[in-house]
Amino acid sequence: MSVPPSTYPRRLLPLFLGLFQAALLLFFALFVTYDEPSAQAEDTSLVASQVYSTFPFFQDIQVMLVVGLGLLLTFLPRYGFSSLIHNFLLLNFSMQWALVLQGLLHHFHHGQIYLDLHKLLISEFAAVTVLISVGAILGRASPCQLLVMATCEIPIYLASEWVIVTCLGVLDVGGTITIHVFSCYFGLGVSKALFRATQQQLHPKETPTPRSDLMSLVGTLILWVFWPSFVAVLCQPGDAQHRAILNTLLAMSASAITTVVASSLLERDGKLSPGHLQNGSLAGGVAIGVVADMAMPPVAALALGSLSAVLCVLGFRFLTPLLGRRLTLHDQCGIHNLHGLPGILGAAASVVAVLVASKDTSGSQPSQLSPAGGNASEVVQGQWGGRGVGGQALCQAAGLAVAVGASLLAGLLTGAALRLPCLARPPERLCFDDSLYFKIQDQAESPGPDSSAEEGALALKE
Amino acid sequence: MSVPPSTYPRRLLPLFLGLFQAALLLFFALFVTYDEPSAQAEDTSLVASQVYSTFPFFQDIQVMLVVGLGLLLTFLPRYGFSSLIHNFLLLNFSMQWALVLQGLLHHFHHGQIYLDLHKLLISEFAAVTVLISVGAILGRASPCQLLVMATCEIPIYLASEWVIVTCLGVLDVGGTITIHVFSCYFGLGVSKALFRATQQQLHPKETPTPRSDLMSLVGTLILWVFWPSFVAVLCQPGDAQHRAILNTLLAMSASAITTVVASSLLERDGKLSPGHLQNGSLAGGVAIGVVADMAMPPVAALALGSLSAVLCVLGFRFLTPLLGRRLTLHDQCGIHNLHGLPGILGAAASVVAVLVASKDTSGSQPSQLSPAGGNASEVVQGQWGGRGVGGQALCQAAGLAVAVGASLLAGLLTGAALRLPCLARPPERLCFDDSLYFKIQDQAESPGPDSSAEEGALALKE
Amino acid sequence: MSVPPSTYPRRLLPLFLGLFQAALLLFFALFVTYDEPSAQAEDTSLVASQVYSTFPFFQDIQVMLVVGLGLLLTFLPRYGFSSLIHNFLLLNFSMQWALVLQGLLHHFHHGQIYLDLHKLLISEFAAVTVLISVGAILGRASPCQLLVMATCEIPIYLASEWVIVTCLGVLDVGGTITIHVFSCYFGLGVSKALFRATQQQLHPKETPTPRSDLMSLVGTLILWVFWPSFVAVLCQPGDAQHRAILNTLLAMSASAITTVVASSLLERDGKLSPGHLQNGSLAGGVAIGVVADMAMPPVAALALGSLSAVLCVLGFRFLTPLLGRRLTLHDQCGIHNLHGLPGILGAAASVVAVLVASKDTSGSQPSQLSPAGGNASEVVQGQWGGRGVGGQALCQAAGLAVAVGASLLAGLLTGAALRLPCLARPPERLCFDDSLYFKIQDQAESPGPDSSAEEGALALKE
Repeated sequence: MSVPPSTYPRRLLPLFLGLFQAALLLFFALFVTYDEPSAQAEDTSLVASQVYSTFPFFQDIQVMLVVGLGLLLTFLPRYGFSSLIHNFLLLNFSMQWALVLQGLLHHFHHGQIYLDLHKLLISEFAAVTVLISVGAILGRASPCQLLVMATCEIPIYLASEWVIVTCLGVLDVGGTITIHVFSCYFGLGVSKALFRATQQQLHPKETPTPRSDLMSLVGTLILWVFWPSFVAVLCQPGDAQHRAILNTLLAMSASAITTVVASSLLERDGKLSPGHLQNGSLAGGVAIGVVADMAMPPVAALALGSLSAVLCVLGFRFLTPLLGRRLTLHDQCGIHNLHGLPGILGAAASVVAVLVASKDTSGSQPSQLSPAGGNASEVVQGQWGGRGVGGQALCQAAGLAVAVGASLLAGLLTGAALRLPCLARPPERLCFDDSLYFKIQDQAESPGPDSSAEEGALALKE
Repeated sequence: MSVPPSTYPRRLLPLFLGLFQAALLLFFALFVTYDEPSAQAEDTSLVASQVYSTFPFFQDIQVMLVVGLGLLLTFLPRYGFSSLIHNFLLLNFSMQWALVLQGLLHHFHHGQIYLDLHKLLISEFAAVTVLISVGAILGRASPCQLLVMATCEIPIYLASEWVIVTCLGVLDVGGTITIHVFSCYFGLGVSKALFRATQQQLHPKETPTPRSDLMSLVGTLILWVFWPSFVAVLCQPGDAQHRAILNTLLAMSASAITTVVASSLLERDGKLSPGHLQNGSLAGGVAIGVVADMAMPPVAALALGSLSAVLCVLGFRFLTPLLGRRLTLHDQCGIHNLHGLPGILGAAASVVAVLVASKDTSGSQPSQLSPAGGNASEVVQGQWGGRGVGGQALCQAAGLAVAVGASLLAGLLTGAALRLPCLARPPERLCFDDSLYFKIQDQAESPGPDSSAEEGALALKE
Repeated sequence: MSVPPSTYPRRLLPLFLGLFQAALLLFFALFVTYDEPSAQAEDTSLVASQVYSTFPFFQDIQVMLVVGLGLLLTFLPRYGFSSLIHNFLLLNFSMQWALVLQGLLHHFHHGQIYLDLHKLLISEFAAVTVLISVGAILGRASPCQLLVMATCEIPIYLASEWVIVTCLGVLDVGGTITIHVFSCYFGLGVSKALFRATQQQLHPKETPTPRSDLMSLVGTLILWVFWPSFVAVLCQPGDAQHRAILNTLLAMSASAITTVVASSLLERDGKLSPGHLQNGSLAGGVAIGVVADMAMPPVAALALGSLSAVLCVLGFRFLTPLLGRRLTLHDQCGIHNLHGLPGILGAAASVVAVLVASKDTSGSQPSQLSPAGGNASEVVQGQWGGRGVGGQALCQAAGLAVAVGASLLAGLLTGAALRLPCLARPPERLCFDDSLYFKIQDQAESPGPDSSAEEGALALKE
């Protein structure tokens, strides 16, 4: 409480980042190179068509993460600049760090790592976990704490993803289990260990203003628009990708409408809550990821979208306050409602989808209701190896358990590490304020804050 | 006038939306499925290439409708959240509703509707009509009224589009007649019947602030950038699509410059009006849609863009006030200037283009000035069947008449229906205010406005 | 100082623009047509595939220029509307003007100019130079001055680009030398000749507010996301384009992190400066353009990105104030730090890259470290004609010298022309204010002003 903003320690950040960047340069100089251009003639057009088929998706995802997610986090009215820059910095840091680790683990051939767009994309996916997790402690953690958190989370994510996808053979094309569920419980674990039993009072700078809510909503809408690209980018081109796009569009559309219904019904006066709308509209995209390319009738995508929106709004209304009171668990952005609950729902749906897909093929004729079933489940069964339907369903459930367990444990340990005094957690009074980290005028000090004459005049009139 | 915000009825909205969503789920469960994956080997690469050629256009259009159009409507300074959310909700609702109706009308085979990206795109186009029409009554209508309006407008649009395109064979690749003109006069009809002879006073919350004008301009720019995708997405791939993109780019560029000229000349002190710039820059895109893929020299696109911008600015300066005084016709966003006048201009241009294209081929050699003429008009004539040039020109004019007539009539009827008391039109005092529908602090009630009360308190404390 | 806003002359702008637009229409009517559709059957699919491969890049670049760059310039809190509209207007004007000039110079065949998407793209690139140059005098120049500046700059750019690329054979796929360096020194020349030895005082309306800094940062992020499209759009499809995308991504990622390090180290209290972050994160993209498709190990892209960010931040911290004091050189947006210094660094890197690429092939075996070297440098040598490695390196340096020299000289002359009284440079008191050009309420005159303390102070003073 006694630290004035002028003496808040800010030297560790450039030191940490500078050393990291130098180490990265050294690592790249020693080990990383571009793919060897092959001698064949068709190669150029092959590479070109790969670029044309992946790059638009890649750009969509970049817009989502840098602009959409960044804006979504600007609902804290005096922390907008920090939210955008921390998100941007963490994305770049985590992507580079994931590139190094993935290169060492998976792509080290003859002392060389060959870089291509696909590997950058995979690293970007790893970075997403960090961007989600920090939502739990947004505004109350220093940039150094966030970077240390990213440093810990990326290797744990890679290990967990390896267990879930490679060992267990879980099908999860949109990262519902591997990314959303994992990062949610990692973030909650960090929050619990970092803040321990402190009951967080409502901070006066924490309440959104109409303007910050509007900016945040624009972020939601950008994420909503580009979400199908995120889910479908790693699908098999052709029918599977087409289906993944359609399923995601349907799920998100159902989410958008159901969020309004749920939010309106849950409030006594029927007014809609901005927080519900900003998050609930995206819940369908989280849930659909794990089943998006599976053989599934369109109604399942709609139902999943609706159900996840309901869960998300219920979570904001009842579960988050409950967790706050009972477990003193702090979740600033409500990541449990947007990523945790819909993620678990999606995992459950994938168990059902696997079981149902098999029934369609057990009959002699694929049912009229889900004609994609017959064909696609054979493909799926090919992927399952000799595991059988029940086995695959069990694996999906096991994947969920691994994601929750590993992330919670690792998050708790990471959160404990973040309590190191040198990481300079901001004192409560200086939380949620851009002026702690940036040369930005403190808005609280200005006398007549922030609006126009009409508004002033109007205020007087009424 | 006596309704306080706390007793304003808000229960119909979740009821209506909830029932709709439930009915949609039932409908999808019974009738909708994905396209059957065929057995042939080439199919996968065919579907893949269709996805790669359509999906980027589709995403561009989504950005336009969700982010661009939403932001354009935020020029009302205290109604930004409502504008964005109502636009978003109406898009999803209308798209789903159009999907159902189009499925029943056009795509019902053997008791099944096969869903694909193209059908979603067509439904999205239908939804655009609703998003345009509501501009006439923005801020003065309740969400329930908007939803009922969408419920009525979509089937009427589908019928009108069927008459215009299928029966009359009107060429309108960018939806100038079928979408822009139709939705404009539908919206004006609704407005007339809803507000009747009430002269609308300037509401104190209606005047844009510098900040809300800036947000709205960002919306305009986003729409401006992606407009070529909207016009060209349904064109024949190849030359026609290439020409549609170029024509749209030229028309919009000419619009942008001419709007500045016209706005500056029309004001006594030569200052530019934000409203003119926000709308006029887009007028070229509305007008070019109907002729974008026709055989036409580039200068025609430029001229059309310039002319439509002039019309749009003139409309804002003279026609809208005139219609307000004489016909007590209320047009909040000026949709008549952006969609009506340029749409009619475009329809007229299409008559000329059809007539001129035929002259080029009547000579033995295509003229040097429009070398595309010869080839393209043959293609066009193929499309016309045995109708002949004069017949096709007549059809274009008849299409315009159908669009205007049907939409005005249907709009008047719909507007009368919206006067039902249960639809809860907000009383004048509560119009243009987010706090009527959302848990957002009423900016007018705060002492030092736009920063929240907590911030004021904090400023005092520190 | 004695000119009140109401008598400020505003009639030249519509006159100038109107005449230009009329002349353009005449020019298009006489000379411009679309490409002749050929008779061959494969043509349609060829055109279609060209559209699909170029159009997404084109749209990305449009978003960068219209939305991203526009928002970046809104850091002036009361000049946001002007920044967006002037940027938008200059883009359209310069693009059309470049289309005319390029048509006359390069594409005039048999009295006709054939228009296609590629030529529009090239004209758009020419327009970028204007958008960059005006950054030096943003807020202190009238729209007429900006248009005259664009009128002069486009032909000089085309001449300089012809000398650099066609005559000298300089390799510069991303426009580092031809666009960024050229436009930077042109803008500085204009600024020097326009303001001469006037020491510019800090204008009270010039200081960014938290909100305007946030909007500007969103612009930076949009530019950051889409930069790879700008660099790679003109590359050879296949490996070269793939490498250009990857190099740009790496350089920009390194820039983002290094900017934070440099900004934090250079300030006494370790707080980050918004201006550094808004510009430094993009510096890598400027520098990488000239070498993006060359044979180069990935570490070089990272190093170039880091180094250019350091240069950019150092420039803001030390060089801009120094140039202001010593040379009374005014650079409002710091274009010398974002475009000049990183551009020169990139040009130097291209000399090294050419020399190093040749060493790789001189040995019998391409080195393991840069396996792309062998193959790509052969391609490059093919492009060099018989010039040899040293010759090409010399040419790269000569290209830089031409760009700097020609632009400075031409900028000084243009700036002198802008002093013509009829161009209506706004008096100092009315600078940086939207209300001089737009029907927007003057925020300074409002009692409860739209933001920061400085603004309040200003309102009191006036």
